[in-house]
Amino acid sequence: MSTPQQYHSYIEACVEAMNACNISYISNLKEYDLEKLCDCIRINRDCAEICSFTAQALSQGSIFAAEIAEVCAKACEACIDECQKHPQTHCQECVEACRRCAQMCRELMEMKVPV
Amino acid sequence: MSTPQQYHSYIEACVEAMNACNISYISNLKEYDLEKLCDCIRINRDCAEICSFTAQALSQGSIFAAEIAEVCAKACEACIDECQKHPQTHCQECVEACRRCAQMCRELMEMKVPV
Amino acid sequence: MSTPQQYHSYIEACVEAMNACNISYISNLKEYDLEKLCDCIRINRDCAEICSFTAQALSQGSIFAAEIAEVCAKACEACIDECQKHPQTHCQECVEACRRCAQMCRELMEMKVPV
Amino acid sequence: MSTPQQYHSYIEACVEAMNACNISYISNLKEYDLEKLCDCIRINRDCAEICSFTAQALSQGSIFAAEIAEVCAKACEACIDECQKHPQTHCQECVEACRRCAQMCRELMEMKVPV
Repeated sequence: MSTPQQYHSYIEACVEAMNACNISYISNLKEYDLEKLCDCIRINRDCAEICSFTAQALSQGSIFAAEIAEVCAKACEACIDECQKHPQTHCQECVEACRRCAQMCRELMEMKVPV
Repeated sequence: MSTPQQYHSYIEACVEAMNACNISYISNLKEYDLEKLCDCIRINRDCAEICSFTAQALSQGSIFAAEIAEVCAKACEACIDECQKHPQTHCQECVEACRRCAQMCRELMEMKVPV
Repeated sequence: MSTPQQYHSYIEACVEAMNACNISYISNLKEYDLEKLCDCIRINRDCAEICSFTAQALSQGSIFAAEIAEVCAKACEACIDECQKHPQTHCQECVEACRRCAQMCRELMEMKVPV
Repeated sequence: MSTPQQYHSYIEACVEAMNACNISYISNLKEYDLEKLCDCIRINRDCAEICSFTAQALSQGSIFAAEIAEVCAKACEACIDECQKHPQTHCQECVEACRRCAQMCRELMEMKVPV
């Protein structure tokens, strides 16, 4: 079983992606062209919650850490695909944070974690 | 995208498994032979939170519903394996609720859900 | 300490409000007059997550059940205030579910729960 | 409405308290004198989840940030009271992280946040 200490940088990457997704979510809801951003709003919230749950699961040493990290990597990748369609700064910053989180999650999935 | 209405019975199964896992968690912490129940305590909490997150994800129509349901099915199956080792009523009731939740999650994974 | 069994109808009311808020959230994002619904979208998600967390906290017998129920009651009441401004069926159904959840939470807050 | 940017140091304090509570939770379950630690195990998990939820709520700019922060401050203070009874290093580290989180939450409650 990995400990929260070992997972520290992974938890941090999840929290940063959660924050970037939430900033993008809030900012999108204030944009002018709202109808073009509905998919982005939904996936931002969806991804933010998955990142938050992943951080929590890693922190408590869930035995399903690898499986949850895989869902988180997919959510971040889908969020990147959507955010890349939009020129707004908050979307571009969300892409960066999600890219790092996805990489970390994929790395974690391949760790040989003694259970 | 499936709607929370379509997911109603799945959400219900997740909430029932969450409750059964939490009852088992709380009850285990009051048992006499506590040191034999540590693994059960941990997996009960782990599974309870995954069930709770799955209910929420289904309820908000997450586009990762199938992936999250798969993690939930695995968590319930691991919880069943552990609870079956213990004779306590709360462990047996947890087995029943997790079995139903795991079945529902596996069914959901195979649904052809229009996204 | 109350048990999840005692909390059963409270957990149910929270889950129903979570579902109604999420249905309203998803439906609002598909409406034509999106810019009039931004506040409703935000409070629907906010309330949905608070209801979900409250269900989970009650289920695990949190010693902060009364405090969390108070936040949940306030969130439901704010959600009612916003949803009442909109004629859509999903907003009206959200009002009903939040009204019941707020009542249950206020009832729970006054319970003399032996800790 | 405060933004996740403004909340950054508050979110960080919540995540650190979540991690410290989870480390204490996991470590307690491996201790020899388990029966003396049951209350500590329960309150560690309870507090960890409240900290996690608070981080998420602040991150998404919840309009109930102050109310949720108040619950989080109380949870951290209760966790401090319990952990102070135990000599283990993980309990002492939990006290430190919870003290900082409680202070931050109390500070946040007094912020005049424009909604």
